[in-house]
Amino acid sequence: MIDCKDEHILNVINYPEDLRKLPQEKLGEVCEELRQYIIDILSENPGHLGASLGTVELTVALHYVFNTPYDRIVWDVGHQAYGHKILTGRREAFHTLRKFKGISGFPNPGESEYDAFIAGHASNSISAAMGMSVASELKEEHDRHVIAVIGDGAMTGGLAFEGLNNASANPNNLLIILNDNDMAIDNCVGGLSQYLVDITTSQAYNKMRYDVYRGLRKMKLINNDRRGNILRFNNSLKALLTQQHNLFEGFSIRYFGPVDGHDVNYMIKLLNDIKDLQGPKLLHIKTKKGKGFKPAEESATEWHAPGKFNKETGQRIIVHNLDEPQLYQDVFGHTLVELAEKDERIVGITPAMPTGSSMIYMMKAFPQRAFDVGIAEGHSVTFSAGLAKEGMIPFCNVYSSFMQRAYDNLIHDVALQKLHMVICLDRAGLVGEDGATHHGVFDLAYLRPIPNLTVASPLNELDLRNLMYTGYKEATGTFVIRYPRGKGEKKDWRNEMHVLPIGKGKKLSEGDDIAVLSIGPIGNEVIKAIEEVAGEGISVAHYDMIYLKPIDEELLDEIGKKFKRVITVENGVVKGGLGSAVLEFMADNGYTPRVKRIGIPDTFIEHGSIPELYKLCGLDAGSIAGEIRKMMND
Amino acid sequence: MIDCKDEHILNVINYPEDLRKLPQEKLGEVCEELRQYIIDILSENPGHLGASLGTVELTVALHYVFNTPYDRIVWDVGHQAYGHKILTGRREAFHTLRKFKGISGFPNPGESEYDAFIAGHASNSISAAMGMSVASELKEEHDRHVIAVIGDGAMTGGLAFEGLNNASANPNNLLIILNDNDMAIDNCVGGLSQYLVDITTSQAYNKMRYDVYRGLRKMKLINNDRRGNILRFNNSLKALLTQQHNLFEGFSIRYFGPVDGHDVNYMIKLLNDIKDLQGPKLLHIKTKKGKGFKPAEESATEWHAPGKFNKETGQRIIVHNLDEPQLYQDVFGHTLVELAEKDERIVGITPAMPTGSSMIYMMKAFPQRAFDVGIAEGHSVTFSAGLAKEGMIPFCNVYSSFMQRAYDNLIHDVALQKLHMVICLDRAGLVGEDGATHHGVFDLAYLRPIPNLTVASPLNELDLRNLMYTGYKEATGTFVIRYPRGKGEKKDWRNEMHVLPIGKGKKLSEGDDIAVLSIGPIGNEVIKAIEEVAGEGISVAHYDMIYLKPIDEELLDEIGKKFKRVITVENGVVKGGLGSAVLEFMADNGYTPRVKRIGIPDTFIEHGSIPELYKLCGLDAGSIAGEIRKMMND
Repeated sequence: MIDCKDEHILNVINYPEDLRKLPQEKLGEVCEELRQYIIDILSENPGHLGASLGTVELTVALHYVFNTPYDRIVWDVGHQAYGHKILTGRREAFHTLRKFKGISGFPNPGESEYDAFIAGHASNSISAAMGMSVASELKEEHDRHVIAVIGDGAMTGGLAFEGLNNASANPNNLLIILNDNDMAIDNCVGGLSQYLVDITTSQAYNKMRYDVYRGLRKMKLINNDRRGNILRFNNSLKALLTQQHNLFEGFSIRYFGPVDGHDVNYMIKLLNDIKDLQGPKLLHIKTKKGKGFKPAEESATEWHAPGKFNKETGQRIIVHNLDEPQLYQDVFGHTLVELAEKDERIVGITPAMPTGSSMIYMMKAFPQRAFDVGIAEGHSVTFSAGLAKEGMIPFCNVYSSFMQRAYDNLIHDVALQKLHMVICLDRAGLVGEDGATHHGVFDLAYLRPIPNLTVASPLNELDLRNLMYTGYKEATGTFVIRYPRGKGEKKDWRNEMHVLPIGKGKKLSEGDDIAVLSIGPIGNEVIKAIEEVAGEGISVAHYDMIYLKPIDEELLDEIGKKFKRVITVENGVVKGGLGSAVLEFMADNGYTPRVKRIGIPDTFIEHGSIPELYKLCGLDAGSIAGEIRKMMND
Repeated sequence: MIDCKDEHILNVINYPEDLRKLPQEKLGEVCEELRQYIIDILSENPGHLGASLGTVELTVALHYVFNTPYDRIVWDVGHQAYGHKILTGRREAFHTLRKFKGISGFPNPGESEYDAFIAGHASNSISAAMGMSVASELKEEHDRHVIAVIGDGAMTGGLAFEGLNNASANPNNLLIILNDNDMAIDNCVGGLSQYLVDITTSQAYNKMRYDVYRGLRKMKLINNDRRGNILRFNNSLKALLTQQHNLFEGFSIRYFGPVDGHDVNYMIKLLNDIKDLQGPKLLHIKTKKGKGFKPAEESATEWHAPGKFNKETGQRIIVHNLDEPQLYQDVFGHTLVELAEKDERIVGITPAMPTGSSMIYMMKAFPQRAFDVGIAEGHSVTFSAGLAKEGMIPFCNVYSSFMQRAYDNLIHDVALQKLHMVICLDRAGLVGEDGATHHGVFDLAYLRPIPNLTVASPLNELDLRNLMYTGYKEATGTFVIRYPRGKGEKKDWRNEMHVLPIGKGKKLSEGDDIAVLSIGPIGNEVIKAIEEVAGEGISVAHYDMIYLKPIDEELLDEIGKKFKRVITVENGVVKGGLGSAVLEFMADNGYTPRVKRIGIPDTFIEHGSIPELYKLCGLDAGSIAGEIRKMMND
């Protein structure tokens, strides 16, 4: 037994084995300190506050009951897992969260053996945990528990359902914990969400169930000859009384709950009760996002990832400077409303990112014409395709790395039918602190091979508006616009919109020695690099290609004829994107310039600030200038 | 009223409006003729027989009740829709089904306005139809019905669930028809499938429901103050009595059924009854795959797509010639069993394609170590990742075009964690008669940008075995093997397996004038082309790259030094694949050969035989020889 006289009990918990040595009555205290520690650190080092405050008690209960890391906890979306990180050897490092070379914002098996599986994108936990559980069975490690912890938001993703549907199909001992806080990042949508609300509001259920059960048995309407019959009966009865149905029992998964997810002792009792029951089971707990920090409890969306804040006053430290450029996201949101005012065929679609993408403006201005479909990227694209097929003009906004979830929808449901819609890929390129799972760096390469697509990226927010207008007004097929997270370049961005001719780039500066071709806002680093080398007498022509596809062949022809030295710059993987497109054109047309491609190297890039990551990948002005000099000197 | 004295009533039905002019008592006859017509044509012109025989009555009922094409029918996976094609202007053209320049095997809006949405990949119908339904509401075309027809197999796909979850979220008038034939292509798996069986086997339900309802009302256990309460009550009761739960009511979708899907008159009555009910609704019909053709009824998997057959005797016309090469699929299946016998860590996973992929051999040999997860490609990959994370060595077999469904799973759940598993992409390259939705032509381009992957393709089935062995024995990370549909090259394929060194290609023939670099079985066309031009004195070196990634840089260095003329050949899109990789290497290393890339052009390729499509894309030996000559003469 550990000596608990230390002023801060958290300080003696370096690993879960330390936690498990504590008497159970100390766990309330652990929870309090853990919660306060998260608040203390995140007030100075921005991160995802709300979700992790909601899972403090669950985290303590899980590590107290289960033999981690031998037992596996698979967190679904790592935002919930900060407490887990602190209890599993990373308390001291916690202030480095999401910083360059610091610990990751998500569970990461490369970082700790306690992180059983990667968890950046939602809804993967059940499938992964089921695989791990089946593997344990096959290895005859029958005593291993595998626990998937999934939020109600992530539960709307198709992958979670595929996992649920399969969970009962093979021998496995999976425990699914449904962490139900009534919301994903924004409010949760869809039938499932309503279902979860309804299931927990039945008052009659506990009082009546045994009476009715006996009554129905007398009437011989039910019998007891099946294993698990009483449990099933209870769930059926609950469904009957609440006029709702237990979705999970429909999948032959034993259902327990809902229970208070902030009662650490009750959860410990329950987890001990059910953990050795054979077969897949689901425990439904109710938690509150931001639990224990009033402002965060009251406004969960705002405090999902609040940035720095004053932990005493509960004030978020937001620097609003109207002299600064606005976010690309806000430009997108306001511009969409502007377009929607002009044409009632325009509709907006987001998979669970109304605030992050600023689709919220459209939802407020035109509630009938804006759709938050929940965490369901595939559906967001195919639903948009259905709208487009009937003559609407959908603006479907999906984060670039999440569009990987809807790749087939884009090919099969959209491009193949040449549907007129605008796909806005937010968070394209390096995203900074969210790291490897969230960098939107593959899109240029995975979009370019798809026939019938137009793929564009704006140099700045003025051109984002122009591209949105072009996609709406000029395009006849599918028009994809990728743009990054964060601030733009201009403070006055409300320009009169005009068409950017499809497939036409722009020469931004004249030069004779080298041609630099860029796409998207990374072109602004090129502009700085060119200024840098201009003083050294190097004359650089800069082309903003704007369109990756169709690429401006006239411009490329001009470049092929004039230049022997070409550099391409893109905020995306260097294999398959703009650089490759330029090489293909040069080869197809018999030009033989030397071509240096600058982009993301062929490795997963970790987290860090954008300037740090630009430097790492050679995408900052200084590195680009260096490549220009090098090519001149070779 | 149409004159029905014509010997064949089907001959007077050119469009559904003709059908709707018939008296209802004639519809049985229409169904019989329609069924026979499908059997007659498909016995000579191979296609998907079973599914379309099962939907004859449904098809007639839908077009009789609904005002197509103004009302929209969205078929989920087009195999069901042959009857629909015949009744909607394509009876005469039906014998050209799946043939080059003939009609498509799937609904295709480009072919007919009656085909409301594309339908090659499963599970998209609910999302698409919901989009179309919401669009109709927004356009104030409130009288339009939108009907999604989805099989129980397709219902296990995550996209279908995302659609279901959203179906009640927005005002729409969607009718979902669940065509439940107890199977997808092979037997259906998972909790949902069991659920559908259970829901239909309750005997007590109809007899008892009113008695119990009244009893419970007296006990004040239920009340009537909610709209739809009685319906919900009935469903709850059914759930209670069957000890099962109504999944669909869980999503706030009104549920009707199950009903006999071969009773055309009852379906017409029911469709008329429910079609104008407001809000989303689901009609569950039970059908039999292959209905009306005995052999197909008895063995649904075998008769899914039987090839030619004798319609009188029910004999399939299969040419078994042991002197011919076997299918790549069979080589995969037998080899996997061979490997699994050697190492018990090896497991096999297929999303609903045990027969098509030949995973069935593994399922028979090692039932505990082989998993058919249903139509759920994302789950198949993430489940495999969970198995791999715990030290198993999964062979996950997914058709190339369906892997587009699991793209993010591959990036996020597999590659990012450098998991040791073998991904087998079956049906890679052009697939022939299944056409645009099924060609596996994007994989080389979409896989190459993903870090940590090894991507390979064998020249023939001997190398398929060698690559499977290499992926198992030599690889430490994720190893992808792509190979085509259909027959290999050798009749003696049971070679002793050996490692093909990772990242090493092979020089197949020496030459001095031109280097041709190919990957995969398309290299056999190159071999023929080289023979063709050898007689003309052109000396061609042929390199089988084997690995797209890591590509053999030593070999490329040799080629860059020696050759001024290079041709690349791949059975995949020409943007981003092998050709681009070669251009990138040459540019990065200062080589300037002329490079001609041969591959699939940037357009969706329609259906046809493989030789026809090779010719269309310039991938046949003759076309390749032509390019060799052209490059020599330039």
